[in-house]
Amino acid sequence: MSFTVKALQKTGPDQPFRIAEIERRDPRPDDVVIDIKAAGICHSDIHTIRNEWGEAHFPLTVGHEIAGVVSAVGSDVTAWKVGDRVGVGCLVDSCGSCEACRSDQEQECTGGNVGTYNATDVDGTITQGGYAEKVVVKDRMVCRIPDALDFDVAAPLLCAGITTYAPLARWGAGESVDGRPKKVAVLGLGGLGHMGVQIAAAMGADVTVLSRSRKKEQLAIDLGANRVLATTEDGFFAEHRGEFDLILNTISADIEVDAYLGLLAPRGVLAVVGLPPEKQSIGFGALIGGSKVLAGSNIGGIKETQEMLDFCAEHGIAAQIETIGVSEVDAAYDRVVSGEVFFRVVIDTATFAEVDAAAV
Amino acid sequence: MSFTVKALQKTGPDQPFRIAEIERRDPRPDDVVIDIKAAGICHSDIHTIRNEWGEAHFPLTVGHEIAGVVSAVGSDVTAWKVGDRVGVGCLVDSCGSCEACRSDQEQECTGGNVGTYNATDVDGTITQGGYAEKVVVKDRMVCRIPDALDFDVAAPLLCAGITTYAPLARWGAGESVDGRPKKVAVLGLGGLGHMGVQIAAAMGADVTVLSRSRKKEQLAIDLGANRVLATTEDGFFAEHRGEFDLILNTISADIEVDAYLGLLAPRGVLAVVGLPPEKQSIGFGALIGGSKVLAGSNIGGIKETQEMLDFCAEHGIAAQIETIGVSEVDAAYDRVVSGEVFFRVVIDTATFAEVDAAAV
Repeated sequence: MSFTVKALQKTGPDQPFRIAEIERRDPRPDDVVIDIKAAGICHSDIHTIRNEWGEAHFPLTVGHEIAGVVSAVGSDVTAWKVGDRVGVGCLVDSCGSCEACRSDQEQECTGGNVGTYNATDVDGTITQGGYAEKVVVKDRMVCRIPDALDFDVAAPLLCAGITTYAPLARWGAGESVDGRPKKVAVLGLGGLGHMGVQIAAAMGADVTVLSRSRKKEQLAIDLGANRVLATTEDGFFAEHRGEFDLILNTISADIEVDAYLGLLAPRGVLAVVGLPPEKQSIGFGALIGGSKVLAGSNIGGIKETQEMLDFCAEHGIAAQIETIGVSEVDAAYDRVVSGEVFFRVVIDTATFAEVDAAAV
Repeated sequence: MSFTVKALQKTGPDQPFRIAEIERRDPRPDDVVIDIKAAGICHSDIHTIRNEWGEAHFPLTVGHEIAGVVSAVGSDVTAWKVGDRVGVGCLVDSCGSCEACRSDQEQECTGGNVGTYNATDVDGTITQGGYAEKVVVKDRMVCRIPDALDFDVAAPLLCAGITTYAPLARWGAGESVDGRPKKVAVLGLGGLGHMGVQIAAAMGADVTVLSRSRKKEQLAIDLGANRVLATTEDGFFAEHRGEFDLILNTISADIEVDAYLGLLAPRGVLAVVGLPPEKQSIGFGALIGGSKVLAGSNIGGIKETQEMLDFCAEHGIAAQIETIGVSEVDAAYDRVVSGEVFFRVVIDTATFAEVDAAAV
């Protein structure tokens, strides 16, 4: 009823990763088995497995930026065949019948969706993520990776890509305002921000990166930004008051919400995808004056994720990555946390072949 | 270059109203002179003239819910003629050339708009509001009052009506979701809320009133609500979690923002028009989970105000009012503040004829 694959596993929040044999279920009639080629490291993986966000269920394998090739399909699967290039993001199941699912917003499923790792699956087991040789996923939760995208640069799109694409699309980054491109600011230039810059630029926006300093200026320009502004410079918030139509906040630290609302033009939108641990403070006057919007955004549905992958392929957008082997993940985590990584680390899962699994 | 009219004036925040002769400019080529028939009392009038919102310029006449009849027009005016039934709301001028003005959002004018009272006009004088016999206003800031609406019940529409209509329209209160009417909750049932309930119901929404108690239940039902829920009842926020597509917050007190966001369905909107004096606290997680929206809304543009008036006439919507004479305003203010008024007080300006102006 199941088979085993090599995976990177932690047995506790302070333990190093080890190579373990973990179980994957034999494919059900509507399942797809995927040979994983690349798995991105998302900051959420780190928060989860270090027990910084509620309880992690150990032993645990994380990873929800998965790219690979279909190696087997269940008897009822018609959408996929062996050899298809596919990706899996943050979700591996949803109820399929609630209003959210019926409107292609599986990420908001109110009937109970299933996260790719550390979630309770419909069979009661805890889901295990993509730092592994293979994964087994319900067919309708899978997306096609266009041929133009290599597996390693496509993997991070499944989380970082859709997380930034969805709010940029929802709030019309590509629309013109009074005949000019929308002025879109991306706050933070990390794993999420560097995708947001590329996507907003490809949509046709006039893109500004807002960062604490200008040190990533050339990187930002290379990604498609027209300028970088340093938020710590004297008079920044006064000088740029009312300037932007849309700000995408990708940072997970506290922000002065009212100050950023002040940077918006009338009817502007501050879209937040970064989750600071503490509550933020907001004056409703900063929202009411100018009829402004503070909007949260939570990844995206499967249909929109496919749309994002196709958009990225069409526009030559991919994650900027460095590739590591399976023995380098602990060190990579430390570098991600310290901000040394520009912009995403991806695990080359072919390197599982070079290591033996630990005795369990 | 000017003429005088009787008006209700205060000489200081703690003084009673007195009848004074105030100056109105002779009409410029693009001005309309309006004989005021009715002037609504908005809570903003009270906050302003009691110096609770920054500095009031005394002596001052307030009032920005104005209904009347055109009695003279400037030489260039073609849109209006003597005898037209018209209204004026919160604005008497705007730059006309900024992006906001060009997109019919004069309330967000970045070139400098002019409030109906206590604002610096383009000629440097302080604007005086509608508790008066006449007002002189730029032609393009005037709306037509449909014949179906009496002056007294139309006056409050110019502020309370548009303040609630605009967010209900922007956030699609009249749209269906998955084949059912949108579930719209109106938080607070005062001057703003009672307009919001009628407008949302006329748009086709399934309307719920959220109030601290159920004591206004029959009033709410009569206005078009389908139910009243008391937010102070045990387990309210858990029981109604995820229930509403749109919540219109009309109260000006502190609210538990995250708790109200929790009442929203995925992609739901909490629209705020009430301005609590203190900053509010919000967890971004409550916005990101469910991709929810917290949106401010600031009155509306002139075009939309006309649309709202036509909508109200078509659907038989008007403010629920009590009418008072010019000598009763001080007492009415106290009753508005203490919450005794259901739902709006309107000054019958014909009663200026019964009183003499004080010596200035």
